[in-house]
Amino acid sequence: MTTEHPRTRPVVRGAMGLPVVGMVGGGQLSRMTHQAAIALGLSLRVLADASHDAAALVAQGVTVGSHESLADLRDFATGCEVVTFDHEHVPGALIAALETEGLNILPGSAALLHAQDKLVMRERLLALGVPVPPFAAVSSPADLSLFADTHGWPVVLKAATGGYDGKGVWLVSSLEEAAPMLASGVRLLVEQRVPLLRELAAVVARSPYGQAGVWPVVETVQSGGICVEVLAPAPGLSEELALEAQSLAIRLADSLGVVGVMAVELFETASGLLVNELAMRPHNSGHWTIEGARTSQFEQHLRAVLDYPLGTTTMTAPWVVMANLLGGDGDADLDRRLHLLMGRDPALKVHLYGKQVRPGRKIGHVTALGDDLDDVRTRARIGAHYLRTGEWTQ
Amino acid sequence: MTTEHPRTRPVVRGAMGLPVVGMVGGGQLSRMTHQAAIALGLSLRVLADASHDAAALVAQGVTVGSHESLADLRDFATGCEVVTFDHEHVPGALIAALETEGLNILPGSAALLHAQDKLVMRERLLALGVPVPPFAAVSSPADLSLFADTHGWPVVLKAATGGYDGKGVWLVSSLEEAAPMLASGVRLLVEQRVPLLRELAAVVARSPYGQAGVWPVVETVQSGGICVEVLAPAPGLSEELALEAQSLAIRLADSLGVVGVMAVELFETASGLLVNELAMRPHNSGHWTIEGARTSQFEQHLRAVLDYPLGTTTMTAPWVVMANLLGGDGDADLDRRLHLLMGRDPALKVHLYGKQVRPGRKIGHVTALGDDLDDVRTRARIGAHYLRTGEWTQ
Repeated sequence: MTTEHPRTRPVVRGAMGLPVVGMVGGGQLSRMTHQAAIALGLSLRVLADASHDAAALVAQGVTVGSHESLADLRDFATGCEVVTFDHEHVPGALIAALETEGLNILPGSAALLHAQDKLVMRERLLALGVPVPPFAAVSSPADLSLFADTHGWPVVLKAATGGYDGKGVWLVSSLEEAAPMLASGVRLLVEQRVPLLRELAAVVARSPYGQAGVWPVVETVQSGGICVEVLAPAPGLSEELALEAQSLAIRLADSLGVVGVMAVELFETASGLLVNELAMRPHNSGHWTIEGARTSQFEQHLRAVLDYPLGTTTMTAPWVVMANLLGGDGDADLDRRLHLLMGRDPALKVHLYGKQVRPGRKIGHVTALGDDLDDVRTRARIGAHYLRTGEWTQ
Repeated sequence: MTTEHPRTRPVVRGAMGLPVVGMVGGGQLSRMTHQAAIALGLSLRVLADASHDAAALVAQGVTVGSHESLADLRDFATGCEVVTFDHEHVPGALIAALETEGLNILPGSAALLHAQDKLVMRERLLALGVPVPPFAAVSSPADLSLFADTHGWPVVLKAATGGYDGKGVWLVSSLEEAAPMLASGVRLLVEQRVPLLRELAAVVARSPYGQAGVWPVVETVQSGGICVEVLAPAPGLSEELALEAQSLAIRLADSLGVVGVMAVELFETASGLLVNELAMRPHNSGHWTIEGARTSQFEQHLRAVLDYPLGTTTMTAPWVVMANLLGGDGDADLDRRLHLLMGRDPALKVHLYGKQVRPGRKIGHVTALGDDLDDVRTRARIGAHYLRTGEWTQ
């Protein structure tokens, strides 16, 4: 039995008297959140940059506007019980202004700052006693030089704000290599190049009520700074480390006051776990949950921001592998490839985002599920590779 | 490996060069098909009666128009690679006219007729040697009297066209009781009231290429002519009868030239199976497949009408039970009930259709999955009952 838990604010109601949810950003995260919203009787409203955005192609309540305009954001939020995000690019000051006006924006600006500013995040995590790579703020060549003297070259230079998918991250071996970034005026931090065994992610959701739910820890396989594959659960991860990662994610969500889904990207090193990045939204490392967990990250994000009780996060199969589909030849006949892939692997789940194909762009993903990791991983890889290149390989 | 299978017609392409699919009718079947379409990179176009229809609330490409207007249908179909249906109410003559013009409508009028006209269906099935209840066309009291003399009162009188969810079906015990129907001018047939053990359904999909895929046979539990519960697989069904039902569904799909999903509603009797009704679209008896099968009936319907290879139909859990949510008190606070239900059963999957709540109207469904049938069935029943009434009972 559940205890009564009355809402503390009026509800902006749509169809069936259910709350109206808005999402800023029209990318694939909004697109997949919309799928989950439909089941819950909701229709996601989307503030998109353009009418051909991934989510704008498939949702009914689409507003084309700027996520950097206070007026556009206010108009959008006013018709919603709650507004949430498909990306981290909405300026915190605008979110804070809307919060002051009494609008319900989740995650809130105070929490979201830690996913927007890597320097703020690092300093906060350090203060919380959460293990992070050695780092320092950099505002001059001297700062960088001092850090490298202690930790050795090469180092990882990062833009404090605005980076994603490897953008805004540079491995530099000398002051000369770092010169363009140092001269750019961008706020920077430097981190030790940590010798890592692999990358993991712990994805958690938290509601305003304070309930938290976490999925099994996954391994994220990176190539060129982009996640290409997610293995759920992380193969061979000790129960101890898995529990540590999950506990860390829950503790962080709580300490930072996160509402909604948060992905904690982790480095597994010989001496334990380090937090790499935080994302406060449904995340690529959680796409496998659509078929692979009883509650997907997209449904969970909606439940969390609406302050509904969270759903069960147990897996639906022993192994689940998601492979990202990166854009290849823009002129490829995707219809034909999809056709032939469906014939070869009738159990593979294909997700395409409706986006224009550009080399290297994330335009979809495939998910395989089963009892044998090698088999599942091979199927996911073959599927993604074939859709990208038109060639059957492993 | 799959063999090459080139399409025989040009493709009307939308985003990513993928084909554009239209669905006539804006009900929950279109709504759930849209969810499946999003994953495949498609955006379903919907011809809806009104902008507040279940699917019209959530899809981008919505046209409000009449499914009884040739002009509306033609305009809609012209922008689509293929047009399919959320219901059986489009007049066959209009579909045939569009087919003559070269438009791609699936299932085609020749097949669909058997889901639109029960008398045509009965006669065709009889000719195919498929077991059906004893029946006769009725155009006078004498016809009815003659049938009842042979098979005994009461008999089941049915409108040949236009019925659904128990509408257009009457159990009558005398000529007097049948008089209003006989006088109505509606084309009628009469059937023996078959002593049945239970009702089953075999749901199949077939592509133009001729590939067929069938899900496990389910038990459909009826109340007042409306399906209230679906148990997958049908508990205690012998392998022999299950195979017979599946074979029958595949044979019928093939013989009738069905493209898309077809539900074959069956009576299980002491002497074997009888076909009750056919529906040529995703069907209430297949809603459990959204979470309960590797490929849902909605995805499969899209794959079939687009002539993609079909997906795997294996179950994702040993037992899956779907319970329909019928409208109760229209003033109920569904948001609050949803909240409390999610707290009580965090693994239950809830589907709400965005429809105005009216007593007895299908406004959603819930699905439970697990290892123990009794537990799964109880959870589905409790969930649907609570959402309807606000009371926790079994």
